[in-house]
This record gives sequence, structure tokens and C-alpha cells, in this order.
Amino acid sequence: MGKIALAIHGGANSGSDCSTGNILLYERGLEQAITAGYNILFQGRSAIDAVHAAVMAMEDNPIFNAGTGSALNEKGEVQMEAAIMEGRYLHAGSVALVDQIKNPISLAKAIMEDSSQSMLAGQAAVEYATGHGMMALHKDYFITNHQRESFLKSQDDAAYRLPIDGKKKAYGTVGAVALDKYGNLAAGTSTGGPALKKSGRIGDSCIIGAGCYANNKTCAVSATGDSEYIMRLLVAHDISNIMEYRGATLQEACDYKIFEKHKDCRPEMGVVSVDSLGNAAFSFSTNCLCRASISNYQPLCIAIQK
Amino acid sequence: MGKIALAIHGGANSGSDCSTGNILLYERGLEQAITAGYNILFQGRSAIDAVHAAVMAMEDNPIFNAGTGSALNEKGEVQMEAAIMEGRYLHAGSVALVDQIKNPISLAKAIMEDSSQSMLAGQAAVEYATGHGMMALHKDYFITNHQRESFLKSQDDAAYRLPIDGKKKAYGTVGAVALDKYGNLAAGTSTGGPALKKSGRIGDSCIIGAGCYANNKTCAVSATGDSEYIMRLLVAHDISNIMEYRGATLQEACDYKIFEKHKDCRPEMGVVSVDSLGNAAFSFSTNCLCRASISNYQPLCIAIQK
Repeated sequence: MGKIALAIHGGANSGSDCSTGNILLYERGLEQAITAGYNILFQGRSAIDAVHAAVMAMEDNPIFNAGTGSALNEKGEVQMEAAIMEGRYLHAGSVALVDQIKNPISLAKAIMEDSSQSMLAGQAAVEYATGHGMMALHKDYFITNHQRESFLKSQDDAAYRLPIDGKKKAYGTVGAVALDKYGNLAAGTSTGGPALKKSGRIGDSCIIGAGCYANNKTCAVSATGDSEYIMRLLVAHDISNIMEYRGATLQEACDYKIFEKHKDCRPEMGVVSVDSLGNAAFSFSTNCLCRASISNYQPLCIAIQK
Repeated sequence: MGKIALAIHGGANSGSDCSTGNILLYERGLEQAITAGYNILFQGRSAIDAVHAAVMAMEDNPIFNAGTGSALNEKGEVQMEAAIMEGRYLHAGSVALVDQIKNPISLAKAIMEDSSQSMLAGQAAVEYATGHGMMALHKDYFITNHQRESFLKSQDDAAYRLPIDGKKKAYGTVGAVALDKYGNLAAGTSTGGPALKKSGRIGDSCIIGAGCYANNKTCAVSATGDSEYIMRLLVAHDISNIMEYRGATLQEACDYKIFEKHKDCRPEMGVVSVDSLGNAAFSFSTNCLCRASISNYQPLCIAIQK
């Protein structure tokens, strides 16, 4: 059997204590998600299916900010986004500003498989989903108690809404990258976005080349962190290009992008990635990155702190 | 005075006759737009302002598929998108799925200048615009007779809607790239999208790195053509990276990306670009690209055919 590998993340955090709750819950959530994805690779199925399963598991777990458990925007609404990409033909699908759909990553995958467009947003995307057999759930399914409480607290406390330097920031994106036994790479990313984001705001997670990119020639990358930087700096695509044009290894490319190239603006971001040889790489300028990796040559590794 | 340069496009066309109407009208529209932008550069103002003025002139001209004159989607509605980026700090703004706003490029610029997010879409973006002093116009302003007739014809004639190989395709995006006397680059792109596109579909024109990218270290690029390819192939960002990592000239980078790198899928696309030395480059795999360029070292040049 060729090499198979999977790496996932459940978001990053700039707080010094790295905990937005119970660390054990995050570790268990990561383990559950990576097991779901790895079983698929181990059965000889595709990297896309493994990425899809791992991201779905995190979307379905309320502790992660994606699917149920998504952070609420300024209006107290859920607006989710997701993207998925496969590295052989560079097919991709992306969805933004959706509610009601249990698994935005499944909707992104359906859009990818239907080659007539790459990206859909809003109510039309929800209608596309229901037209393709996905169930529209009640909005209450997505709003967990902890996100509702956090939103209500923000409404009572004006200071909570102010951008404060040094304030602890949580980047609750989830993502997965995989190499299957056929040598194909895939990447997927999904998020509820930052708490109190503007209604109608689209972030990096659903932008091909920013929060998600896969190319069999180089690597698959899923990013999390300061969304506006990740979009403008095309983080995932640039890591691939640093490998392609500069001949860097995956870890060199990730570290150069995260720590060296943008020293002037010091953006907070993290990536999980895997290359066409099955090497996994993590790199993050945040204090923590909830992450896990496994391959048929490397045992399961789960970590949150540096 | 340092070198100043501006290049614009008004869309591409794969039809062998290169005309979607009166060529003189297109040439006059290009001349008007490039003059509006170049006057600003010549007055010593910024590349961003020049790009903004040139794109605005094309949005306001009903012969171009952006602003008034936008193609109608499957529901007979206008859904416009635009992006703008400056190359010094890599600030960018982007807007998708908007109607009622006369100049989507102005809305993208306002979003760029308000650094709290990079991309807004839909009704929330329209509300953001009106909250920032832009007027919401009646939807009729955007729907020209020729686009209404084209839509009605498509409803009567089922064959019109079928994707037919070899069918003439028009890619009616508009865009501009500029270098100002301070050495700053900027790029802007705006479109009504392809006729009969799915409601809620987002294309490459508003995606930073796909249809629009600027970086003072390399170049500014605006792309047009097969949107799904441009998004997945990150055309504008890749051209910048080919210069940055490979040391290619602007024309080499554009030609490599458009003609060489993706020979297997032969995507139809075109780019206008300018580098930090003020060289302009055009490259297109379509039959035609409505384009114009000018600098303080090169006279005005307007062309449509190869």
C-alpha cells in the first residue's frame, strides 16, 4: 500500500492559556474527526472523501466553530462558509453565507462535483443544497448554548465588542488535508467565522488559495487565523508556490510563509498541510493550534500547545 | 516625474469575429475609461484612484458587462461583483452578489479602506454601501435593453441555454491596473458575470488572487475569461509569484500562465497587467481582448483583435 496521510486542525488561539474551555474535549474531538477520516483512507478510498469525513465530524461537534456551534454574527445569526479542493485536476467547490445546512463541507463538495460553478453563496446556496438532497435544518440546531451566551454577553457589555490590542483571539476554523494511496491530495476548510462578524462578511475559509488549496504537484493546505490577512496573502496557494517555484520542502514553505515573509505585519495564522510524499507539516504564529496527524508510517499525534 | 502607466480591459471574446456589437463603441468606451484613469495619474494622484476611475467609467458605460449593462442571471436579475487591491500594503476590498449599487468598484474600495473586513456580499453589502453614502438605484438602471432582450431570447429558445462546444463565448469583465509616480501598483476588476449564471454564484472577479491582484514587489493583474478556471488556477496571484520566485519578466510570467502552464485544460482567459517599472503586458488565449494601455513613455494604444 502506498503512503496515506491525514492532518486536521480545529482552530487556533492567541490566548496565552490556549484554552477556550476543556482541552480534553478538544483532544477528543480531534481524535474522533481524524479517526473518521483515516478509516476512509485506510479502506483505500479517496483523499477528498477522507477530508470530507474529517471536516464533517468537526462540523457535527458543537465544541468547534463550524456547523453546529458556529459563532454568531453581529445580528446573532449563523453564517457559515466552507471550501474543498482536490489536487489532481484542481477541481474545487466553495460555499459562503449559508445557514440551515448541517454540513457546509458537503455542500462545497456537491458544488465541486457539479462543474458548472465553483462558488455559491447565501439563500441560493441553501436552495441548491436542498435541491441536491441535503436537508435544511431549523436554525436552532446550529446555535449552541455557549455561543448564544457569548453573543448575549457581547450585547450587554460594550467593552466586549471593542478591538483591544492583546485581547485573546480565538480562530475557530476547522480543516483537513489528506494524501490517499493513489497519490491524490485534497484539502477542506469550514467555519462559522469570527464572533460578531458583520452580516454578509465572507472570510478566507471559503476562498480557494487563501484558506484552502490542494495540488498534487506540491501539497494540500488548510489555514486558520486572521482571515483578512490570509485572504490578501493567499496563504495556502503561496505555500504551494514556494514549493513549486523555489523547491522548498513542505515544512520550509510553511515556516517561511507563516514566520518570515510577512514579518512587517506579523499576522496571526496557522496551517496544517501534507505533501505528495505524505509528510505532514504544521506551522502557526498563534499561541496554540488544535491539531492532529496520522499516516501509515506515523502514529496518531494530537496537540494543542506549541 | 517617475514613470506612470495604466492598462485596462473591457472583456474577452472567443468568437472568431471578435464583435459582440459595434467595435467602434468598444474602442470609444476603452478610450474614455483610460483617459479618466490616466488624467488622475498625470495629476500625481494614486494608482488606486486611477484604477477606480477607469473601472467606474466602464461600469457606467452600458456597452460593458459591469454596472449598468450587466448580464442577467438565470432569474433575470443583476448580481454584480468587484474587487480592488493596492500593492504597497496589500490592502484589498471585494464585494459579491450586489445589485442597486451604481459602482461596485467604489463599494469594494470603501471596504478596502475600512480595514475591519475584506469581502462583503449580498443585501448586507448593499446596506453597507448606503450606510457609507452610496445611493441605491432602482434595479431598472442596471438592466439595459440589449441584456433584457438577450435574456428573453434565452427563455424562448431552449437551445440558447445549452452549453455547445465551439459556441461563441463572451467574457464581459472590465478591469484596470496602474502604476503611480510613487511607485505604487493597484488593480481593480468588476463584472456582471456570465449571462444566465446561477443565482448566488460568485466568480473570479471579486476573488483576491484570482481575477485581481497587486503587489509592489512584482505587478498588478486583472483577469477575464473562464471564471471557474481563473479561480482554481489563482491566475493573478500566480503571475505575481512567477515573477517573484522565478525572476520572470511580466510578459514572460503572463504568457507562461496563459499559454504554457495549463496546456492540459486550455482555459480561455486573458490578463492585463503592469509591473513596478511601468511595463504593461497583455496575454490572452481567447480570440479577442478589448484592451488599452498608456504611460508617460508610451502613447495610447487601443486594440481588440490579436
